[in-house]
Amino acid sequence: MSAVYAGLEAGGSKFICAVGRSPDRISAETSFPTGVPAETLGRAIAFFAEQRKYLPLAAIGIGSFGPLDLRPNSPTYGYITSTPKPGWAQTDLVGALQRTLDLPVAFDTDVNTAALGEHRWGAAQEVDDFIYLTVGTGIGGGGMVEGRLLHGLLHPEMGHIHVPHDLSADPYRGCCPHHGDCLEGLASGPALAGRWGRSPGALPPDHPAWELEAHYLGLALVNYIYTLSPQRIVLGGGVMAQAQLFPLIRQKVQALLNGYLQATEILAEIDQYIVPPDLGRRAGVLGAIALAERLASDG
Amino acid sequence: MSAVYAGLEAGGSKFICAVGRSPDRISAETSFPTGVPAETLGRAIAFFAEQRKYLPLAAIGIGSFGPLDLRPNSPTYGYITSTPKPGWAQTDLVGALQRTLDLPVAFDTDVNTAALGEHRWGAAQEVDDFIYLTVGTGIGGGGMVEGRLLHGLLHPEMGHIHVPHDLSADPYRGCCPHHGDCLEGLASGPALAGRWGRSPGALPPDHPAWELEAHYLGLALVNYIYTLSPQRIVLGGGVMAQAQLFPLIRQKVQALLNGYLQATEILAEIDQYIVPPDLGRRAGVLGAIALAERLASDG
Repeated sequence: MSAVYAGLEAGGSKFICAVGRSPDRISAETSFPTGVPAETLGRAIAFFAEQRKYLPLAAIGIGSFGPLDLRPNSPTYGYITSTPKPGWAQTDLVGALQRTLDLPVAFDTDVNTAALGEHRWGAAQEVDDFIYLTVGTGIGGGGMVEGRLLHGLLHPEMGHIHVPHDLSADPYRGCCPHHGDCLEGLASGPALAGRWGRSPGALPPDHPAWELEAHYLGLALVNYIYTLSPQRIVLGGGVMAQAQLFPLIRQKVQALLNGYLQATEILAEIDQYIVPPDLGRRAGVLGAIALAERLASDG
Repeated sequence: MSAVYAGLEAGGSKFICAVGRSPDRISAETSFPTGVPAETLGRAIAFFAEQRKYLPLAAIGIGSFGPLDLRPNSPTYGYITSTPKPGWAQTDLVGALQRTLDLPVAFDTDVNTAALGEHRWGAAQEVDDFIYLTVGTGIGGGGMVEGRLLHGLLHPEMGHIHVPHDLSADPYRGCCPHHGDCLEGLASGPALAGRWGRSPGALPPDHPAWELEAHYLGLALVNYIYTLSPQRIVLGGGVMAQAQLFPLIRQKVQALLNGYLQATEILAEIDQYIVPPDLGRRAGVLGAIALAERLASDG
């Protein structure tokens, strides 16, 4: 019997656990609200402990909300670090699962993990240089350079870049507690709600909110394109469920680049360059399984 | 006798050729103005052909002005593509040297090549995730992610990112022919000259020009930090010869991040995080030698 992997998507509001090999070979799956660490981690550990009675789990992958310590040589590697989420600051996520389950543990950000899921089985299968951006309660980014997940000093925090903000056209001051009108402060779900006085889902598809949203996301994408030169950009998250955003964002990106980058992918094939995720809400937990698979095959 | 490498820095105004093994083991070096392609490439080829009479050249590395075609499978791989520089558009740089010298040729952007030089022998020796930004006639960026030079779809064009521009504080409209007030349009040498009416070198160190310049470069660096999470940033180029910029930029970066990234490197050790190059004007040609060395040792 060949190996099976465990995947844990540790989200700020929900934990999703699964064991399996691929999207169509998931043997078991469960999810529950994120409570206090001891209880929530206990539920995840109990699920995996039960599953391994029947299946030979080879490794576990965790994609977690952050900020995280991802430095392999750090004494707090595998921790959720300075999160404002009550009870979760300085939680040793990797240690808790490793000690109780005695399995190799792979660990990355929620966004990098979803990016890996899309790379393994979804919208980024053929590309080794790409960005995955999620636009929802916050804005987060991850991705790959030459097949390596982006890490560096800490990990990418793409939502906090500064983009031009014309206060005469858009007097909304932004809602980021750290930076005011950074991208997340201007274009996250809460920013939409703050600017227009109702939830994004209550804004009709032809509302001017979406043109402005596409403007800010277009500026951000152009900055990422200039910096990383991705072969594709996958846009997920709750706000991107508004499908009318995709054509608007593609137009903005082309207009802002203004012909400077002479690449067929951007000029003629932008419908395949800026795309929605294939795996949708399953990208995170499937990516966690892919993380575990990578660890087991590297080991 | 161990192998020696050839390096060519193909600049828009000057070509620099050298053969050797490292900064203190350069056997011969020459430079000449960039004229028309046939003549200029002829001079470079003649220099290397002469040198190889005495030295066993193992490979040649080229760092070139662009834009370039760096896609290994492209029919125009190794070309300078759509440059406005008269005579140089669609020039087969790699082909010209490969055919005449019959050596393995490594090829990258001028900025990535300088970045590699600083990684091999200069200011980025201990880090595998870093950015090298050059601020001069234009603004260009390169660097590494996990030891791999940044490429992707085309190559990074970091100078063209959009940053906030408050027209009431700085009415200068920007000088980028493609994007007006992108970073290059606001903070390159020509932008400084256009805004203040004299060349950057004629502006005294306490002129308000430098505070504003540090503001724009600080915004750009913060965007790169959020996107790539580099372990170090090396700032070179003619404008950065103004040493008073470094402390100003470091202050701006810390103020803009506003404590959001909890990393000792940024908070307490920023003097070692944002640094000048070690190799100075030699980074390009030495990086070209390092490119050749990499190719020969990979081969």
